[in-house]
Formats: sequence, structure tokens, C-alpha cells
Amino acid sequence: MAIKASLLLAFFLLFAGTLARQQQLNQCQINRINALEPYDSIQAEAGVTEFWEPDNQQFRCAGVEFIRHRIQPGGLLLPSYVNTPLMSFTEQGRGIQGVVLPGCPETYESGSEQQFSDPSKRRGQRVQDRHQKVQNLNQGDVAAIPAGAAHWIYNDGNTELVVVVFFDAQNNANQLDANHRRFFLAGNPQAQSQQQQPGRQQQQPGRHQEQPYGNAGNIFNGFDVEFLVEAFNVDRETAEKLQGQRDQRGHIVRVQQELQIIRPPQSRQEEEREQRGRDNGFEETICSLKLKENIDNPSHVDFVNPQAGRISNLNNDKFPILRRLQLSAARGELYPNAIQSPRWMLNAHNLLYVTHGSMRVQIVNNQGESVFNDELRKGQVVVIPQNFASIKRASQEGARWISFRTNDDAITENLAGRVSAIRSLPVDVVANAYQVSREDAQKLKYNQHQTALFSPSSSKGQGWWSSA
Amino acid sequence: MAIKASLLLAFFLLFAGTLARQQQLNQCQINRINALEPYDSIQAEAGVTEFWEPDNQQFRCAGVEFIRHRIQPGGLLLPSYVNTPLMSFTEQGRGIQGVVLPGCPETYESGSEQQFSDPSKRRGQRVQDRHQKVQNLNQGDVAAIPAGAAHWIYNDGNTELVVVVFFDAQNNANQLDANHRRFFLAGNPQAQSQQQQPGRQQQQPGRHQEQPYGNAGNIFNGFDVEFLVEAFNVDRETAEKLQGQRDQRGHIVRVQQELQIIRPPQSRQEEEREQRGRDNGFEETICSLKLKENIDNPSHVDFVNPQAGRISNLNNDKFPILRRLQLSAARGELYPNAIQSPRWMLNAHNLLYVTHGSMRVQIVNNQGESVFNDELRKGQVVVIPQNFASIKRASQEGARWISFRTNDDAITENLAGRVSAIRSLPVDVVANAYQVSREDAQKLKYNQHQTALFSPSSSKGQGWWSSA
Amino acid sequence: MAIKASLLLAFFLLFAGTLARQQQLNQCQINRINALEPYDSIQAEAGVTEFWEPDNQQFRCAGVEFIRHRIQPGGLLLPSYVNTPLMSFTEQGRGIQGVVLPGCPETYESGSEQQFSDPSKRRGQRVQDRHQKVQNLNQGDVAAIPAGAAHWIYNDGNTELVVVVFFDAQNNANQLDANHRRFFLAGNPQAQSQQQQPGRQQQQPGRHQEQPYGNAGNIFNGFDVEFLVEAFNVDRETAEKLQGQRDQRGHIVRVQQELQIIRPPQSRQEEEREQRGRDNGFEETICSLKLKENIDNPSHVDFVNPQAGRISNLNNDKFPILRRLQLSAARGELYPNAIQSPRWMLNAHNLLYVTHGSMRVQIVNNQGESVFNDELRKGQVVVIPQNFASIKRASQEGARWISFRTNDDAITENLAGRVSAIRSLPVDVVANAYQVSREDAQKLKYNQHQTALFSPSSSKGQGWWSSA
Repeated sequence: MAIKASLLLAFFLLFAGTLARQQQLNQCQINRINALEPYDSIQAEAGVTEFWEPDNQQFRCAGVEFIRHRIQPGGLLLPSYVNTPLMSFTEQGRGIQGVVLPGCPETYESGSEQQFSDPSKRRGQRVQDRHQKVQNLNQGDVAAIPAGAAHWIYNDGNTELVVVVFFDAQNNANQLDANHRRFFLAGNPQAQSQQQQPGRQQQQPGRHQEQPYGNAGNIFNGFDVEFLVEAFNVDRETAEKLQGQRDQRGHIVRVQQELQIIRPPQSRQEEEREQRGRDNGFEETICSLKLKENIDNPSHVDFVNPQAGRISNLNNDKFPILRRLQLSAARGELYPNAIQSPRWMLNAHNLLYVTHGSMRVQIVNNQGESVFNDELRKGQVVVIPQNFASIKRASQEGARWISFRTNDDAITENLAGRVSAIRSLPVDVVANAYQVSREDAQKLKYNQHQTALFSPSSSKGQGWWSSA
Repeated sequence: MAIKASLLLAFFLLFAGTLARQQQLNQCQINRINALEPYDSIQAEAGVTEFWEPDNQQFRCAGVEFIRHRIQPGGLLLPSYVNTPLMSFTEQGRGIQGVVLPGCPETYESGSEQQFSDPSKRRGQRVQDRHQKVQNLNQGDVAAIPAGAAHWIYNDGNTELVVVVFFDAQNNANQLDANHRRFFLAGNPQAQSQQQQPGRQQQQPGRHQEQPYGNAGNIFNGFDVEFLVEAFNVDRETAEKLQGQRDQRGHIVRVQQELQIIRPPQSRQEEEREQRGRDNGFEETICSLKLKENIDNPSHVDFVNPQAGRISNLNNDKFPILRRLQLSAARGELYPNAIQSPRWMLNAHNLLYVTHGSMRVQIVNNQGESVFNDELRKGQVVVIPQNFASIKRASQEGARWISFRTNDDAITENLAGRVSAIRSLPVDVVANAYQVSREDAQKLKYNQHQTALFSPSSSKGQGWWSSA
Repeated sequence: MAIKASLLLAFFLLFAGTLARQQQLNQCQINRINALEPYDSIQAEAGVTEFWEPDNQQFRCAGVEFIRHRIQPGGLLLPSYVNTPLMSFTEQGRGIQGVVLPGCPETYESGSEQQFSDPSKRRGQRVQDRHQKVQNLNQGDVAAIPAGAAHWIYNDGNTELVVVVFFDAQNNANQLDANHRRFFLAGNPQAQSQQQQPGRQQQQPGRHQEQPYGNAGNIFNGFDVEFLVEAFNVDRETAEKLQGQRDQRGHIVRVQQELQIIRPPQSRQEEEREQRGRDNGFEETICSLKLKENIDNPSHVDFVNPQAGRISNLNNDKFPILRRLQLSAARGELYPNAIQSPRWMLNAHNLLYVTHGSMRVQIVNNQGESVFNDELRKGQVVVIPQNFASIKRASQEGARWISFRTNDDAITENLAGRVSAIRSLPVDVVANAYQVSREDAQKLKYNQHQTALFSPSSSKGQGWWSSA
């Protein structure tokens, strides 16, 4: 028995090591991708945050994570920062977002009185303030936030504010391990956390996952209160408030009265004028960079096919902060039954989140296997890994989606259509590769007249080749 | 027994974890490197591709892979793309290569007739075509291809076309795990695959390696044929041809008649003139970058010693696409019995592939251990990891090699010779470091008058020091 | 029993793999950081090198390593290179350092005689020499050395020369696995190695760690002596000296007579003038870059508070070589009982090494847990991982430290004080986040008038708010 056990031991050690190394080396050897919905959520006083399973293979392969905030009217997502660059998309509602950038001036001031620069000269008038710039969030806004920059969101509208957030944990800017970690500056985040899906599957026995938003409170909680008294020069009671140990509200809190914030004009025109004015100066520091861009703005549309749909890309040219973050985004719409060209992305992973309707998506790996062939519905996510081929066809109701890419200049190659790999190939290469006649090879190259987005059964039966 | 088993369990878990972490952390702790030949191959209708074992420690440490295509006259390597940037070297024969770059124009047109822009206006004349530029491949050509860019090769010569290919799987451009994956656009790659070496050793029990070139067909195989019918606007039969399920030819196919391709002029002079002309324009996009350079072109020689050999480097200055790929190459030749200075590379791994003759190579790790001390013969490969020291001495027949480096500006420090570390050191540092007299220290610094390449027993007995 | 064992086996395999993957994925899930002192040392003839445990979790998370050389007067640290970029700090004493940069000219020559360019024309006069530039090391000097560049240090002073060295093993420039490896060009490093701490804890059973400085000698030891005879064109006896197999002195050797080196002027003024002169030329290659900068030079001070302390940063602007190395350094001093603002670093890990006095340091992770809350004394190290919050308070005796960061433009966000996150937030966000009145929110924002460094119990009781 002892001998047996020893042999077993030796075998285990060998095998366990091999197995583990393999997982590391082959974490993108994907045979099956699933459409994902949130697997967990954390409820707070004035909203909820929903989490997609970070250990799902498609997320692990791409090194990305994804969450969704649902903030009630009057709700404030407490200030926090994360160890990865992130992009968010405002799916619904409106709000105000502040991003704290170290060393940037506090340019938003209440009133023009100069005396506020020295608070000791403050007179008995109403509360005044000065803070860093804030930005309005509207539906369709993509916000981009550098790793480690603190930010907060306030819902100043009348409907739920829904914001999805994409984290690139394998980005160079993250020097910690490849997990998204949130550091709260306030509150007591775990207080009301709970799991909503009781039937949640334990896919990984033995994995003691970190609670996504901590389980011990904000970062002030880890300092001695005496240190905070000295650092902030406040009394002990106020310093204890920083730690928020008795705070029961969770990470999204209800604002008592309406938040008084000095903010940019509400209308888009005014806001854009203001932005433009600000960019005219000489400084091109991060302080003057725009941190959001509305991807639904018609000026961003790159592909339009009135019979099929449209695509807008936000890359480093249109949204310069993305150059620093090495990320980009795209917004797509397919009209009912329309098709997006089969394609692959050369240099980026691509996370798809459906915001309206549904579509059939097929994803193919390097073995020519279909790893996903399913309906992707509103609220669902799939990750298309770098180089994997994919095709989309909208359902009867059509589909809209937002997609996030792990490259600030993500490059796509279409397989069919006016601008595509098949057109780039000599006709004789096509004929020999696919064992078809030169005539059929020309059909493969030229029968599809449209670009990227194809109307349903577009010119079937009407093509010049088929009529030849 | 139960208790024993539990203890055993606890121990296993602890130990297995430790072991695995260690492998990850120490995968460059190399005590032994072997000269490698292909360990597997895939036969196809008109050629064969040979693979070097990607899990060999020297490849894993460097994160690189290596293969060799042998394409018969009239053979076409089907269009495909890989998830890493690659460099190839044409060892023998000649051919045509096409690289598909997304968004680049189809500038190679048959005839000057303009009607071809709208194929529906096509008259009954002979087959016309338009495609992206293609390049002639000749012996000595180094081609550089970005990650994810589709490419194909056609042997239009009378002899076997032999092309070796180097993949940098740890390059930033690869966001998948560190394995080279090939995505075929056509054919049915696995159909005729086979292992040639029946005695191949299973070095890693329990490792279920991916078949190098898939086992299920090209990427169209993973899409529903109905989708392809719509996307390409062709009939079902043609769409099925895209999937190639009944294709028995493998990944290198025999072209039925000679391939009709619009191609650049054959002579090198003409071709270079054309290239130069094309580069005169304002556009410096990737579309106008040269994707190949002949490393055997005498103008590239950097070191010549008429008694010892010569070295040509292709770095980011001489071959600008390399700046994007973060790779470089060198071509070396040692005359019979000549020596290359002992040296190390500061910032790159270095893969050596011998194309002619043989040489003795010694490689030394950071513990001063010889990890390789062997003959390296034509067709064999070794990887010299970053910072490992090496020396080469040609055999009686001399040697030529090509080497691939994981840095676009790979920097070498010689240990001996006119430009070397030993000459950079003050003579008193040399004397004290090696416990020799100042006179002997000067010999160490100055006795070797040659640079990088030393003639056999060069000035032994003739040196000014030994005659002193 | 057999069934049981099989089940056990299946379970082990599943579990072991999971466990291992987890360690890899979560190596920054830190719950406890310790103040570290050297855990091992290697004694040599004229000095000792002390090592901090590279497998300690805080080092592994940050991918950095740390050592300290103590070189006796007349001691020479033998030439060597490492696979990572490094920064060193001269804590005590003075010396001469040479850094060998491939391709840079040997600009330090003894005498102006031109005949030395051809040593065969050498007359019978005294020993002459020519070598690459060397630099004086003085207390407070930060030296920066690229990965793979050979370097040596000679103590030409009368006291022990103490140099601490920081290695960034996860830097892009290191393509080997994430371990610091030293390749010696001379000597027989292991000869006198020993462990000084007999009580050293074996934290990782089963881990067969590499001896930090090898166990087999310098890199010449791995070459055949016949090859060295040819390469250096010297006799066999001298070539054997290169291998140093009979050398018993270890890696720091005693120089027999005073080292004769052509060196820059000793006084700082002269040296700086010379440096400036050299930088006036057109060449901005690595050969003309300064490789050291004195961080104690008053011109580098960025923050001064006469009641609290001062901070000097060396970033890529002040010390351009750092742009290539992607590293930076800071020197801090806190007067007795003074506080540094609670803060976090957005984009870098931060290693702290105390050079004088002691201070209380608190470090907080993303769960709001205190992972370090202890005295950090002279000679001790902690690593503050990216984004972790920290605060420092000097002891009665005050404190000085040097810190090394894994980013050439490390960005810090203070939580309190005149330039801080709290001031960047609208007062209503502060009030609602911390559940305090607007008045208290204003106190949190404005009560601390100082910047970054706060005098002890600074303006407590004197603030304008408390007197309101």
C-alpha cells in the first residue's frame, strides 16, 4: 500500500504540474463559448451592480471583465478606482460623472469670487465650492478612464441609469495580476451585498474567489483613525466618517437632497462648443483630453447601408484618450435579417454586448470549429477572441450592440463584400484554393456588391453573375 | 487509512501548487539545449510542412515557434493567417507570395481598361482581375508578416520551394495564449496529415496538444452554409466549396494550370526600381511598406572579414516593417574553421537555423554552465535565450545560417575582438578581475585585432604581444 | 480501495490544476506584507552581497527584486550583467562605476599619444590604456543600467561602499522568465558563498531555488578553453585565467594596488560641467546619455515643507535614461512625527527602503484591509503594490528613504491636503459619500492646508474651520 501510494504520489506530482502548466499555456484553446448574463450582483441602497463571471474561459482568454451598474434616480456610485483602464457605455438614462486626475486643476468654481482660493477668508454666504471638471453622461456616451483614476457617477435623471463597464485586465497599465480590483474611497461596500442568483453554479470547486467589491470597506478603513485626524486636520468623529464603518448603504447611495454640482451645460451643442473651446489652448495634457464621446453621434458613423445597418467606430483618432488606454469601441446596428460580413479581427479581442433586439452569431476557432452558434439577446455578452472568425445575422426585430476592443486601433478583415480578403486574392488563387472554375471564383470575389453590412438576401437572383 | 489519505491530500495540494508555480516562474532555468530537427510533419497534395516541437524548453522559454514549408513546383500554400507576427526565409527555390492587408487597395490590375471597376459591365473578353500587390520570393528573401494578416505562397519555379518560418508567440501583437495558431481561409487542412517520425517521443504525458494545423477544416467550415450563400451572394454549391469539406488535397494544393497572376517584374533590378518608385509618394502607411527584403543582397553586409566570414543584419532601419513587428533577422557565414567572437545578446532571444555546412556551437547560462556544446548541422535549430553567452566555430566545410531575433533592434555585445566588452574595461579592472598581470591584461584586450569574426587560429604566433 | 484511489486521483487532478491556476492568477491577492531584511548573503574576499527573498509575495506580485552590496575599501565588484534593467542607490561611501555599452567608443584614454590606436606600434613606455567612460559614484547617486549591459564597481574610498540595487524583472526588456539572473564576466562567484542566517525559514517546501549568483562560475567557464585561446589570441594559461576556476575570491575581489583608471574629475562641479559639455553635441544616442544622477542634489527637490520634510523625484524628465528603462526613483524625508499624505500610486509598484531613522507605515489593499501596519526601520524594505493606499508617519527621530517605481512617470494621487482627490470632488459628493454635513465636507476638503507632507499635528486647533 505504501508503495502504491508513493507511486501514486510521484504520478500525481508529475501530472498535476503538467496539467497546470497546460492550462496556463492553453487558456485560449476554446471549444465552446456561451452567451453570458450576469452571474452575481451586489445590491446597494440606491442601485445594484451586476457581474459577469470573470473566470469564464472567454473572459480569461481575453483578460477582460465586464459589469453593469443600475443606478436609481438620485443614486450616487461612490468614488472608487480600479487597477485597469476601463471603458463604459451609458445604455440608458443620464447622469453626471467625475473623474479625478492627479495634478489637474480644480476648474469648476461656484461664482467668480476670487476669495475662495483662501477658504479662511470665506464670508458667511452660502456654501461655495471648487472641484475638478465633471461631465454629463447621456445615453450613448462612451467614457474612458485610465487605470487608477478615481471616478464617481450620479444619476440626476428620472429613470434608472444603466452603465456597462469593460475592464482590460491584461492591459500594460495594470501591473497587478490579471484581475479587476476596485478600491473605494468611501462607503462600506460589502454591507448589503448579496447573491441574487441562488442557482449559481459553482464551476470551479476550490476556488476562493475574492469578493468582487471587497468585504471590509473602503481604503480609509485600513488606516488608523488617529492618522486620518492628523492628515485631514479634522476631529475624530469626522475622521471616523471617512472610514464609514457604520455605513449601511453599500456602494451606491441615495443622495439626500439634489446634488449641487457645478456642471457643464446640458445640451449637447453647448457642451460640444465648450469642449472645442477648451481644446483650442496649447496644453495637450491629459487634463485637457476629453474623457467621453457619444458613439451614437451621427458624425461617427463609418459604414452605412440603408438596407442593412450601420457601424460607428471610436478609435484613437476620434477619441484620443484611447491611444493611452490602448482600447477602442464600436457601435453596430443591423436591420431585421441583415448580415454583417464574416470577418476576423487582426489585433484585438472583441467583447459584444447587445443593447436592442437580438441576432444570430457564429464564432469559429482556428480548427474551423463553430465555438458559438446561437442567438445573442439584449443584455447578453460574448467575447470573440483575437483572430477568431465571426458572422452576425439580425433577427426579425433587428439588433444593436456595443463592442469593446483591446486595441486602440483594432483592425478588421472582412471575408466577403466589396472590401474583403476574397477581393484581395488573385482570381486564380481563389479558383485553385476552393476548387472552383475561374467564373465561379469571380462570383466569389464580385457577387457581393455591398460593404461589411449586407441587406437580407440582398441581391440574390439579381446579381450580374447569376444572370450571366 | 482515511487519515493517511487526508494527509496525503493536503500534501499533494500544497506540493502540486508549488510545483506548478515554479514551472511557470522558472521556464528559462535551462540546463540543457538540444539541436532540434522537425518532430512532426503534415503531408499535403503538393508539399509538406515540418514542425519543430513547440513545447521544447528552449522554444517555451523564448516564446517562439518554427516550421518549414516544402512546396513542390506548381504547389500553392493555401491562404491563412496566424496569431503572431512572423518572419520567413526563402531557403531554396522561387515563388510568389501574397499578403492581404485590410484596407489596402487592389493595385494589381490586368489591363488598363477601366470598365472592370464595375464587373456588371464586363464584356465577353478573357478573364480579367484585380487584386492586392503580390511579391516575388527568391532565395535569400526575408518576408515579414503582421499578426492576423492572411498570406499565401505559390511555387512558380522548377525546384522545390523551401521556406522556413519563425513565429514570435510572446510578441505584444499576440493577445491569445503563447501558442502559434493558423487559421486557414480555404481547404481542409487535416485531410492528409500524418506523423512522419514514428519514433517520436511523448515528452509530456497528459498533454493533449492541439494538432498544429487544426483537425476540422478552414474557418468557413464553422459557418452555416446558408450564411455563406447570403454573405457571398452565390449559390449553395459554391458556398459549400468555400467550406472545402470534400477537399482531400491538404493545405498545399497542386495548381491545375499555371497560375495567372499580375505580378511584379522578375529581375531584381526592375523590382527594386519599382519599389523605389512606389516609396516616393507621400503615403507611408502599411500599404506602401515593403514586406520582404533580400538578406543575401550584398548591400546588407555589415561585417566582412575576408579570412573569416561575414554578417548581414536586417533591423528596423533597413527593413522598416520590422519596427512594427519588433523582430529582426541576421544572416551569417563562417569560412572553414573560422570563429565568431564569444558574445551575448542584450535584449533578444536568438534562433539559429543552419542553411549550409555545420558549426560547433557552445551556449552558456548564467551559472557558467555549458548548456549546449555540439555540432549544429544544416537543417538544425537552436535557440540562444536572451543574455546567454555563445560562441561558434565553423567545421571544415564552413557554415551559413539565418537567425531570427525577438527585437527589432537586437543588440549584441562581443566578449573578444576589436569592438568588445573586454576592450571597454580599464586594463587594471581586467588585471584584477582575472588575476593576471597588466601585460597579460593588455594581451586579453588587444591581442585579437579582428572584429566579431576571427580567422582560424588567426594571428596565433604572429601577434605583436606573443612576439614581444 | 482501488475505486477510492481513482476517485481521489480524479479529484486531485481537478483540484491541483485549479489551485495552481489560481496562484498564478491571484499572486497580488495580498493580505499581509512584512518589513523585510536580507534573508541570505554571499560573502566574498572584499565584500558581501545581501539578498532579499525574491519569492516573498510582495516581490512576486510586483515582479521586482532587491539586493545590497557592501564593498570594502579597495574592493572590486566583478563585471557582470543581468537580464533586467536596474537602478542602484549609493547609500554610503564612494566609488567608480563602469557600464559597458555595446558600440559606444572608448573615449577615456591615458595620454594624448595617437600611436595607441595600433598597439603593435607601442613603444616601451609605461602601461597605457583606453576604455569606455566610467563614472564616479557618490552618496546619493542613483545609477540606471539597461538590461544586459555589463557593469562593475570599485570602492576607491576609505569606508565601506554600500549600494542597494532594484531589479524590475517584469520589465519588457526582460524576455526571460521573471527572475533576476546575473551573468559574471569574471571570477568564480560561488566559491565563498554561504548563508549567514542559519535560522532562515524555508517558506516554500519543494522549491528548488536557483542559487542567486550561480554555482558554477563565470560565463567563460562554459566555453572550451581552446576556443578562448583562439578567440582572444592568447596562450592557454591566460585563457584559463578567464575561466577563473581556481579563483577563490568570490564576486567582490581585493584590488592588489590602487586601481589606475582614467576617470572623471572628482568634484561635483567639475563633473557636472563636463557632463554638460558632453551633452552639447548633436548625438543623443545612448552613448551620450547620463547613467547616474544625484538624487540628493538640492535642485531635484519637488516638495518642501520646512515643518514636515521634502521629496525629490527622479523621473524621465530629469533623468532621460529612465524613459528607456521605464523606471523612476524618489527620495523622501520626514521630520520627526511628520506625516506624508495618505495616497496611492496610479500606475506603478513602489519599493521603499529606509536609509535613516524609522517611520510607521500603513498599507491598505482593495478590500480596505490593513496589510501592513508597522514600524519600518533603517535597512528594511516594503513593496507597496500598484493602487494600494499608504500613509507614513516619521518616528521621533525622523526618517529618510529611497523608493523605486516600476514606471518612468509614476503618478501619485494624494487623499488629503492642498492637492488631493478629496479637493477634486464636489463638496456635495463628499457630504453624501461620507454622510457628513456640507460644513464637515468642507472641512474634509479644506482643513488641511499643506501639500503632500504635513507637519506633526499641524494646524490642529488653529484651522479656520475649527475656529469658526
